[in-house]
Amino acid sequence: MSQTIRAGLVGVTGYTGMELARLMAQHPSMELVRVTSRSEAGKPLSAIYPFLQSIPVGELEISMPDPVDLAQACDVVFLAVPHKTAMEISAQLLEHGVRVVDLSADFRLNDKDVYEQWYAVEHTRPELLKTAVYGLPELYADQIAGAQLIANPGCYPTSAILGLAPALSNSMVATDGIVVDSKSGTSGAGRGAKVGTLFCEVHDSFKAYGLGTHRHTPEIEQEVSKLAGTPMTVSFNTHLLPIDRGILSTIYTQLRDGFDLAAVRAAYDKFYAGKPYVRVLPEGQLPETRYVRGTMFCDIGLVVDSRTGRLIIVSAIDNLCRGASGQALANANLMSGLPLETGLPKAPMMP
Amino acid sequence: MSQTIRAGLVGVTGYTGMELARLMAQHPSMELVRVTSRSEAGKPLSAIYPFLQSIPVGELEISMPDPVDLAQACDVVFLAVPHKTAMEISAQLLEHGVRVVDLSADFRLNDKDVYEQWYAVEHTRPELLKTAVYGLPELYADQIAGAQLIANPGCYPTSAILGLAPALSNSMVATDGIVVDSKSGTSGAGRGAKVGTLFCEVHDSFKAYGLGTHRHTPEIEQEVSKLAGTPMTVSFNTHLLPIDRGILSTIYTQLRDGFDLAAVRAAYDKFYAGKPYVRVLPEGQLPETRYVRGTMFCDIGLVVDSRTGRLIIVSAIDNLCRGASGQALANANLMSGLPLETGLPKAPMMP
Amino acid sequence: MSQTIRAGLVGVTGYTGMELARLMAQHPSMELVRVTSRSEAGKPLSAIYPFLQSIPVGELEISMPDPVDLAQACDVVFLAVPHKTAMEISAQLLEHGVRVVDLSADFRLNDKDVYEQWYAVEHTRPELLKTAVYGLPELYADQIAGAQLIANPGCYPTSAILGLAPALSNSMVATDGIVVDSKSGTSGAGRGAKVGTLFCEVHDSFKAYGLGTHRHTPEIEQEVSKLAGTPMTVSFNTHLLPIDRGILSTIYTQLRDGFDLAAVRAAYDKFYAGKPYVRVLPEGQLPETRYVRGTMFCDIGLVVDSRTGRLIIVSAIDNLCRGASGQALANANLMSGLPLETGLPKAPMMP
Amino acid sequence: MSQTIRAGLVGVTGYTGMELARLMAQHPSMELVRVTSRSEAGKPLSAIYPFLQSIPVGELEISMPDPVDLAQACDVVFLAVPHKTAMEISAQLLEHGVRVVDLSADFRLNDKDVYEQWYAVEHTRPELLKTAVYGLPELYADQIAGAQLIANPGCYPTSAILGLAPALSNSMVATDGIVVDSKSGTSGAGRGAKVGTLFCEVHDSFKAYGLGTHRHTPEIEQEVSKLAGTPMTVSFNTHLLPIDRGILSTIYTQLRDGFDLAAVRAAYDKFYAGKPYVRVLPEGQLPETRYVRGTMFCDIGLVVDSRTGRLIIVSAIDNLCRGASGQALANANLMSGLPLETGLPKAPMMP
Repeated sequence: MSQTIRAGLVGVTGYTGMELARLMAQHPSMELVRVTSRSEAGKPLSAIYPFLQSIPVGELEISMPDPVDLAQACDVVFLAVPHKTAMEISAQLLEHGVRVVDLSADFRLNDKDVYEQWYAVEHTRPELLKTAVYGLPELYADQIAGAQLIANPGCYPTSAILGLAPALSNSMVATDGIVVDSKSGTSGAGRGAKVGTLFCEVHDSFKAYGLGTHRHTPEIEQEVSKLAGTPMTVSFNTHLLPIDRGILSTIYTQLRDGFDLAAVRAAYDKFYAGKPYVRVLPEGQLPETRYVRGTMFCDIGLVVDSRTGRLIIVSAIDNLCRGASGQALANANLMSGLPLETGLPKAPMMP
Repeated sequence: MSQTIRAGLVGVTGYTGMELARLMAQHPSMELVRVTSRSEAGKPLSAIYPFLQSIPVGELEISMPDPVDLAQACDVVFLAVPHKTAMEISAQLLEHGVRVVDLSADFRLNDKDVYEQWYAVEHTRPELLKTAVYGLPELYADQIAGAQLIANPGCYPTSAILGLAPALSNSMVATDGIVVDSKSGTSGAGRGAKVGTLFCEVHDSFKAYGLGTHRHTPEIEQEVSKLAGTPMTVSFNTHLLPIDRGILSTIYTQLRDGFDLAAVRAAYDKFYAGKPYVRVLPEGQLPETRYVRGTMFCDIGLVVDSRTGRLIIVSAIDNLCRGASGQALANANLMSGLPLETGLPKAPMMP
Repeated sequence: MSQTIRAGLVGVTGYTGMELARLMAQHPSMELVRVTSRSEAGKPLSAIYPFLQSIPVGELEISMPDPVDLAQACDVVFLAVPHKTAMEISAQLLEHGVRVVDLSADFRLNDKDVYEQWYAVEHTRPELLKTAVYGLPELYADQIAGAQLIANPGCYPTSAILGLAPALSNSMVATDGIVVDSKSGTSGAGRGAKVGTLFCEVHDSFKAYGLGTHRHTPEIEQEVSKLAGTPMTVSFNTHLLPIDRGILSTIYTQLRDGFDLAAVRAAYDKFYAGKPYVRVLPEGQLPETRYVRGTMFCDIGLVVDSRTGRLIIVSAIDNLCRGASGQALANANLMSGLPLETGLPKAPMMP
Repeated sequence: MSQTIRAGLVGVTGYTGMELARLMAQHPSMELVRVTSRSEAGKPLSAIYPFLQSIPVGELEISMPDPVDLAQACDVVFLAVPHKTAMEISAQLLEHGVRVVDLSADFRLNDKDVYEQWYAVEHTRPELLKTAVYGLPELYADQIAGAQLIANPGCYPTSAILGLAPALSNSMVATDGIVVDSKSGTSGAGRGAKVGTLFCEVHDSFKAYGLGTHRHTPEIEQEVSKLAGTPMTVSFNTHLLPIDRGILSTIYTQLRDGFDLAAVRAAYDKFYAGKPYVRVLPEGQLPETRYVRGTMFCDIGLVVDSRTGRLIIVSAIDNLCRGASGQALANANLMSGLPLETGLPKAPMMP
């Protein structure tokens, strides 16, 4: 009855490409029919990813990226390539009539100038910024379903925006002075060969990096400003965790007069009612990255500290699944008329 | 058409119970209808396992173990309780007519005396030793399908036996002098509160333990002796890895005259043809525990060292999935007339 | 010439006791002559700590704690026992005329009521609160040298206070709205056998805990209030890292008008001039816990975020060495007339 | 009185160079006066190693390697460069009259042909093979003291040779059929930027590599053959551990008739009497890599398995300290007329 959706993946050698391959191996109605890599073309996928041996997707031959071929062979194409590169490929694929889910940052920012300021490259396809839909299903499910081009959210922004959305859209917290203190697993740093992400440089250690300068900052500010209905500046700061997967953001806000924990909890429960992948944890419980490992869940814990008048929001996601490839797949599901959850993992990997 | 198989789980607070709950959350035709724990009865499963919140299995209430109720409510019952305890519960459940998959060691050894010698307790249900089937699907799929009582294999033995089976059954290696050097992730040490398995005692370290005395020794010897057709003594030795999941066994054998790597590879390929969960790796490739994480795969690497005349076999499994609960579920599938692979994870969790 | 200082250690089975034993093994002029543990009395220290075999301190026999004997045999006694227990032992030891370094929280808070409110036990020796000296050498070296009773600082407070001291004492930041987001290695959770700190519960994960309620909060507030010259309320929040040792605190403040990074850096350089164990890192460099591993160093990184007007301070220490036993030893050095650095490790353990 | 020994280090950017810098920071009578690196020349050491900031050695400026300058400025030079490179530099330094401790493999094998076969490069300085002394202090302390050129042992060989020496020199075990199953921490794989040693590729995993083909094999065979008094072939096999430091070797031998555990233990105790860095553990106790972390200790555990007639020897070292730079420093001590232990860490880093 239902036809299989044919999917392509441009850029398979990084962790987001790897994760998409993993997820696609389990999808009942979407099939990976093209994977591309300039450096690995000609090999079967299992040759570079031995864990996919004896799984059908592992037999797929890696090819050179060719927009014409991709557009012809696929119903939807995922781009797991660096920003700037994604810009042009997206445009070419769209011209050939295939839908695109871009995992890079190239279409996340509505404003060309903001993009160019933070990413320090020219945006050569600004006309597409208007049509791209920001692929956060809890906020934009309807637009995603009808989109040709999805700007798949960044990992950190996913955790920050989902954490803040109910509080801001209900005007429960001050819009200034917000601090987002985020910590990410090392897969977020990519699969390039660099001394800084060697095992012996990361293991048994912890560090801050890029304080106040991370490129996900304008993406967070853009979306929370929409939710709050007013321009916002956020202090967004990042740290590197010696874990494979997971982001945990501790978000410090000032609770407005008249609200207490019960009111906040009610607002969060209402905002996320019917959203299967956001779990507002029971009172007194806080997120742990392991509880969302390998899944689309965003777990949210809420604390009101009466001594300081703060609402502290803690949100946890899996940076590779929810923060990248799983969310991309969920968006492709919606674009293809499938239920959001199709083919996505149900239970987290514990321990 | 196909009815849902109703499953029970006795003992849910350990890692094997946790893993079975995780797997059951994804099974399309088997449903967990009872989970028991003396210490946690009355709570929903998600109260002790927050990662199961908003997943249906998480809402299941934990109950006290009651053989009559379990037999009535379930088609199959998994026992994730310590050895000796499992013995009596198994007998009671069988008397009430329900099939049992026992994850403990109580019915793995055919010989009561050997059991009592290694486990230092009396075996009070020796009559069941004859009817219990050793639940290693690659060796005993037919008997498993018709069994009432499955002795689910130990984690280490699963890796050792699958690694040795083709070589021994083809008389390719000497049956004496074999060394099995095994290394296990820490989940194999259980979820009890002990200083020795605290994070700071295990992390960033590695140790040997129980050399020559591990209780899985007679289980390995029993099964490899059957495969070789002659009684065998094996030097089996264990180490603790600072990882969550995974067992890797490096197995040292003496290759008999007349065999070379090509012959060995051919024998392994033939032995495991049609067995979806054993992957004999391409020549030159060796197993890594991450490549089987969360799955039923047993990856096998083969090396002939001409300097020493040795065939070195390396096998890797996930100790919780293949080495315990996944294998138990596969056995329950076969007992229930379902395909072996029903509801089991396809792709390993990487990274 | 110089006589060897004789030291005692009450409570040797926890990680702070273990760390003190490690450090004492290298001290050229202080010798551990008594170690006590109710549960392990009668054994040599190396029997419970195999890593101390063949090192002289490993041969010391563990004894039952006896204040009279300790006072007679020792020049200084370290208490590595839980709060409340330390209170009485301290008093008894002081009565017998021996100097005490208490690693518990019992004498850190000047105000009995604040102690009783946060620790939920009665303080039975309030008269000692006046004479106890808070053992942070950068702030109180002179008083420490003359003290009979040292309240050794908590691990988190050490990182927070050293991070904030120059900014607050120079009135460079607003005294309200400060957020201290701290992350600690697992040794900080103690060596008791608990499921929550098992390897498989901590490894490859990250979580927040005790937001707004950690008992180190009043200790931080007491000391930063003194530095600022005004009562302060701080939002102090804690997280658990899957590493053995290390605390990293990211401290969010609002920079006052008229100050810039250069001014801030100058103030920090001046404040810590001549303090060998605080390293104000070069501009653009941020602390990593590995860079202080096993040592007394507190590394401080400074960032001014002009977008938000914030001064973000990052401080890193080793929670066991600087945050507990190393600092205790430094205090004992000062109390004994020795240079601060005597016997303390020079180079961090890398990697 | 005693003059400070002036030391040079050629090649400071790898983990062995880093470790030597760490150790030298604590040495009371040897001072690092030259460190060289082609890629980092001109910077102070602390610029590439922030953990050395505010420690005197950190202020040393990295220079280009210049044999004449090194020979003039130093009493002893450590070479932490790749094999083949070390060969020529050693010769030049020796010609200029300075003693050399070569941490590479270039002078470890007495036989030029064996070297060229395993390392696949020409040995251009074979005349030095005769004069080089194998720097294992327990075996060759006297020769080391008088040597001009030390071939510092490999990490794996150090653990294997020390583990086997007493058994072989006392003819207690069969000389054929020995299996050395070794597991190493990831610092052993070097500090080069490679995908295979990225955090996310190593963490939470375990693998075998190079079975039967590791270049440390002939080094082990050379030394154990001397100890046994007969040519030996050993099955030596290696694995990669997700830890920073540490090697644990599990060594399988066949005990000869007439020997039991008591006899073996007596032989080991006698062989290592007066050797401060080998700890033969009490009966029933087995080594753990953490117990030797950061030190020169080699811990040895002994098990006789009567079922299989095997003597199983487990030895653990720190691969960077004992297995490389610490041993190099110990050798330099002996060459300089200092006691073996001068400046070396006493207590392991725990946890």
